[in-house]
This record gives sequence, structure tokens and C-alpha cells, in this order.
Amino acid sequence: MYNVALVKFKKFTDKYGHLTPVEGKIDIPFEIKRIYYISNVQEGVARGFHSHRKLHQVLICLNGAVKIKVKNPHEEEVIQLSESSVGLYIGPYVWREIFDFTEGSVLLALASEYYDEDDYIRNYDFYLEEAQKRY
Amino acid sequence: MYNVALVKFKKFTDKYGHLTPVEGKIDIPFEIKRIYYISNVQEGVARGFHSHRKLHQVLICLNGAVKIKVKNPHEEEVIQLSESSVGLYIGPYVWREIFDFTEGSVLLALASEYYDEDDYIRNYDFYLEEAQKRY
Repeated sequence: MYNVALVKFKKFTDKYGHLTPVEGKIDIPFEIKRIYYISNVQEGVARGFHSHRKLHQVLICLNGAVKIKVKNPHEEEVIQLSESSVGLYIGPYVWREIFDFTEGSVLLALASEYYDEDDYIRNYDFYLEEAQKRY
Repeated sequence: MYNVALVKFKKFTDKYGHLTPVEGKIDIPFEIKRIYYISNVQEGVARGFHSHRKLHQVLICLNGAVKIKVKNPHEEEVIQLSESSVGLYIGPYVWREIFDFTEGSVLLALASEYYDEDDYIRNYDFYLEEAQKRY
């Protein structure tokens, strides 16, 4: 699907536990200007429901599991993240919905830009209108 | 204690869960060139046991709890991280040991530099020798 990709990271596992490193512009295709993490999401709650115009990001589920629906005007896919050495890259003009967070799940996002409300499209009809020209 | 500080992040809490953003050079004093995360650490295991010469980092416990002992040649402190909106900044020439990971705990590190083995001091006697000149 356009602008969506799974990314596999190295995972160092030994008797001391698991360690996964991610280097900006090396393991992922952008500098990490901002991160955020989501936790304590109750059963039945869905988040996301937006697209970005410029932002690139990688979502990584660090504990538990979570599902992500990615859409463009012509395609739709649901991806479950449940393994902390796998990231989901989402580029510009991809609509995303995040749901089915399991108890104790933690979702980490690595983002290519600082927060900018003008970069969000939060209305699905407006998203379709802008995105039609690009797909 | 020199080169050690707790950092409080914003935490957005609503019916959709918790979200905490961290922007490089804004919420923490450096660009995020690299991140890594540690999980699946068994009871009784301790990690760390090194200092950096140049690296700055912020440790954040995203799930569960973990203890971190920070030392320099003259001071020592144990800090428990158990709240995902609190980070522990550790600058150069601070020895750290990480232990008492609770089940399911996830420790995220935000780092100012790419991985460079030459930046590590992994022998405590060598650490004391180099660090003495700085404290």
C-alpha cells in the first residue's frame, strides 16, 4: 500500500532481556524530531482518525498489542502490531485509526516533525478531497 | 547531583487514554538521534554498568517500574521511575546501574548521539580514573 510499510529492527536478546535500538535516518527514513507514547487505553476505545500532510512517522508497540487501520481513497488494510522489533511506517496522506489496544499496551510513535496542528486532516471527507489528487 | 535531573513531561489524559509527547531540543536538551527500549528483563537482573563520555540521554519507564542507581566519584542516588510522564536525564560521566524491573516493564531511552562503542566506559575503575578529573 502507498506510503505504508513494516520496518524490522534489530533486537538484541540475552539473559539481560531485550534491547532494540532505532537510529534516526539510519533505521528509519527521517530524523526523530518528536516522539510520543500512548498508554492506558481502555477496551473498545479507538484513536487516530486523522491523516498528516507532511509528517512521516513510525509506530511501534512496546508492550501488548494494538491494531491499526490504514486507508487511502482506494485501499484499506488492518495491521496488528504485537512485537516490539517491528515498526509501522506511515507517510503523508494516509488515514489511520488505532484500536483493540490490549491491557497494558504501550504504543510509541517516532515522528519526523514537531507538532503542528495545521499538518493534521481530522475530517475524513476533507481527507478524501485532498488525497484524491495524490493517489 | 551533577548531570542528573528528573524531567516532567506534559501528559494528555482523556477518555481515549494517556498521551505524552517529547520534542527534541524543546522538552529535552538535545536532538534525538537514537532511541532504544528495553523489555523482558527477568527478576533479579541488573543492566547498565557503564558511563558515557559525551552522550546525553533521558530514560523513561513506559510501563511498570524500574530503579536506576546513578553515581559519580563522590555521590550516589537511587531513583525509581514508575510514571511515564517523568524522565531521568543523565549526562556525561555518570555511572548508571538499572535494576528491579517489574514484570512487563518497558524502559525507553532517548539519546543525543548515534551508537559509538568508544563513548562507553564499561569498567568502573577506569570510570573513576577519568571521572575524578571532572568532579
